[in-house]
Amino acid sequence: MEFDTITAISTPMGEGAIAIVRLSGDEALAIADKIYKGRSAKRLSEVASHTIHYGHLIDPKTEKVVEEVMISVMRGPKTFTREDVVEINCHGGLVSVNRVLQLVLANGARLAEPGEFTKRAFLNGRIDLSQAEAVMDLIRAKTDRAMNVALGQMEGRLSKLIRALRQEILETLAHVEVNIDYPEYDDVEEMTHGIFMERASHVKSELERLLRTSEQGKILREGLSTVIIGRPNVGKSSLLNSLVHENKAIVTDIPGTTRDVIEEYVNVRGVPLRLLDTAGIRETEDIVERIGVERSRAVLKEADLILLVLNNSDELTVEDEQLFQITEDMDVIVIINKMDLPSKINIDKVKELAKERPIVTTSLLEDQGVDELEEAISSLFFAGSLEAGDMTYVSNSRHIALISQALNAITDAMEAIEAGTPIDLVQIDFTRTWELLGEIIGDSVHESLIDQLFSQFCLGK
Amino acid sequence: MEFDTITAISTPMGEGAIAIVRLSGDEALAIADKIYKGRSAKRLSEVASHTIHYGHLIDPKTEKVVEEVMISVMRGPKTFTREDVVEINCHGGLVSVNRVLQLVLANGARLAEPGEFTKRAFLNGRIDLSQAEAVMDLIRAKTDRAMNVALGQMEGRLSKLIRALRQEILETLAHVEVNIDYPEYDDVEEMTHGIFMERASHVKSELERLLRTSEQGKILREGLSTVIIGRPNVGKSSLLNSLVHENKAIVTDIPGTTRDVIEEYVNVRGVPLRLLDTAGIRETEDIVERIGVERSRAVLKEADLILLVLNNSDELTVEDEQLFQITEDMDVIVIINKMDLPSKINIDKVKELAKERPIVTTSLLEDQGVDELEEAISSLFFAGSLEAGDMTYVSNSRHIALISQALNAITDAMEAIEAGTPIDLVQIDFTRTWELLGEIIGDSVHESLIDQLFSQFCLGK
Repeated sequence: MEFDTITAISTPMGEGAIAIVRLSGDEALAIADKIYKGRSAKRLSEVASHTIHYGHLIDPKTEKVVEEVMISVMRGPKTFTREDVVEINCHGGLVSVNRVLQLVLANGARLAEPGEFTKRAFLNGRIDLSQAEAVMDLIRAKTDRAMNVALGQMEGRLSKLIRALRQEILETLAHVEVNIDYPEYDDVEEMTHGIFMERASHVKSELERLLRTSEQGKILREGLSTVIIGRPNVGKSSLLNSLVHENKAIVTDIPGTTRDVIEEYVNVRGVPLRLLDTAGIRETEDIVERIGVERSRAVLKEADLILLVLNNSDELTVEDEQLFQITEDMDVIVIINKMDLPSKINIDKVKELAKERPIVTTSLLEDQGVDELEEAISSLFFAGSLEAGDMTYVSNSRHIALISQALNAITDAMEAIEAGTPIDLVQIDFTRTWELLGEIIGDSVHESLIDQLFSQFCLGK
Repeated sequence: MEFDTITAISTPMGEGAIAIVRLSGDEALAIADKIYKGRSAKRLSEVASHTIHYGHLIDPKTEKVVEEVMISVMRGPKTFTREDVVEINCHGGLVSVNRVLQLVLANGARLAEPGEFTKRAFLNGRIDLSQAEAVMDLIRAKTDRAMNVALGQMEGRLSKLIRALRQEILETLAHVEVNIDYPEYDDVEEMTHGIFMERASHVKSELERLLRTSEQGKILREGLSTVIIGRPNVGKSSLLNSLVHENKAIVTDIPGTTRDVIEEYVNVRGVPLRLLDTAGIRETEDIVERIGVERSRAVLKEADLILLVLNNSDELTVEDEQLFQITEDMDVIVIINKMDLPSKINIDKVKELAKERPIVTTSLLEDQGVDELEEAISSLFFAGSLEAGDMTYVSNSRHIALISQALNAITDAMEAIEAGTPIDLVQIDFTRTWELLGEIIGDSVHESLIDQLFSQFCLGK
């Protein structure tokens, strides 16, 4: 395909040593040549691919130096977009990088839309849609495990699975077609039903297996929205601090990272926890009184995980029981804190209220029990399966929805076979399954969907 | 010189398409080879300099894929540091870039101190100290003009001037030395005094010229700290909004830039204005009542520019007069706002209170007068000289201090000559001038000063 030449700032905005303005398209080298002056007289359009060149950017209008740069020249198709790509490495200041971008724009490039570089990689056939989507997941990954999932998907692990399933469906359809067209036997109907049934049940179990990974995949990708609740002074803030400080915050110890990011997520054994901020916690103190039980329930329903904190040195109160009541049916971990103090709490009563849900005892003041709490969080959602590092997780909501629909279609097909429905009707459900899976890898998607998907990308990717 | 191999993240922290982990040192290629696997079997230590290679980073311990990367190989001495440099371009996520950094650290590189790459460029003789300092100025530049000043300094414009002056001093010293050593004439003393005086007065006038640029240079580099004061409801917030919205904020229209940066500075005709935030403005409303005239004066003294807003539709009050009183001797622009309303203010009285300071009339509601205000700000500080784009500005406080001291030393020398002081004593002042100027370019500085200077850099530069 042929497109115009696009450009964008491809490094995060801020002050840093280096920033990159990237160009992609047929005119990338010609545009760079208009503004670049190196030590030698050689033009960038003449240099070898995948080479780096030191020089200056000169504004052709004013003939003044705009920046000192290193330019990387990469000729298509061996590039990210399969087009000619030029990367201008300039100083990482806001003025500097903006100035370079403006110069490139003034000399014939168009500002790229968010995700447009990756979109070209997709449209030019270098990667499929699920791989393209993984690029953004990789950038936004909150933990190592989430990044591994994204990396696997980017390298085509999910695509391979999906392609294999589609191939299986296609072969079945072909096989059945042959049987119908050449009915050497009388029992052709039964025969094709048999083939359908066998293949369908295999496809179905594969889809079910993928869907089983999706809950965990989504958690890895998006994090667990976590709320800490409890009466005043049971230790909610201490718990927040323990989780933030005990764990390497997502961004660990990279200097220069904003506090915002650190506070947004903590990494509990590979599970990204999005903790409500302290302000949020304070609000929950009187949440029941303020807005009533039913509305509190609705608010908390948004959370994936509730940490319900009780005070060991105090008797259970009506408020405590109310908290159990409003978190019924939710994923709750009960924390009995202040174990360093004499016990007044009725543990049996707590167990009764907690039902089957895990109870952890802590003394946050003395830093006791946090490990056990983390273990409880991790096993509540991953039950050991996280150790299987090579697993393919489905993590993207779009993929999950499509796999669910495909599962419904194949189930419909199987029910139709059992009911003795004519082959051509069963074929429709089978074909529908094949199409739905195709949408995951972008084999059969509308342009508008593609536009919408890539618009969620960050600029410059 | 030989150093160990250092590494750091060289792009700003945040989510972006690309991030760079940079290595510099003798082991840069060997370390990269331990963790890199490309398509071909060729090792990075065997490839040509200034080439780019696609591949994967593999953790040698786990043999698992860590990231998909592009690696730039640049062999010294034609690099930023003059050492072997490897740049690893990875996906711009926080987890991704941190993971790559950890892998590099685990395989033999040391985390670089802030500014250590540039420090090596200096220690290895690629740039002098004033050029190295300009690198950071360039990254932190708030406006185009500030960036031009930094770019000029980085390319060695200031260094060239300083070197020329030092050469002049050195030649004079040599000339005098010869005259003293070979006293063919009786009037040798008078002769050398004459030479000294002539050269000294030239050096002096050059230093004075440089110092004259320094006020503007500092403003360009650091911005004008600006406070808006006035009684309640005269239009202070409107003024703030006009200045922020009328002008392209420093970062103009790059999507993804944080509001923080936009609000911190506005670019008024190339002058970076650091406006106190609205909260600050609210506080000034009753600043006089709250903390008294003397303390208010002290607070406002920190500001480079005061915008004093009056209400045209109201008579002058005691508070207005107090504001004039506490800003006596400061750089003030008087703004008479609400010109769209019937005038009640006594303009003659305002002129009397303003003394020689500029008065601008505005109707911020109707967007009138903002241009004139900007013109007043620009001409108050630059009086037309900004148009000379090729000027060398001294902008760095360290340089300014050294030039001032050098100016004192050369003035001492001239006074000594006039007083008929013996040549060897005059020589001391002359030599001192030469040394002080040497500190600017790093010819004669202590290691501790160098450490301290580079520690102000951002990481990865």
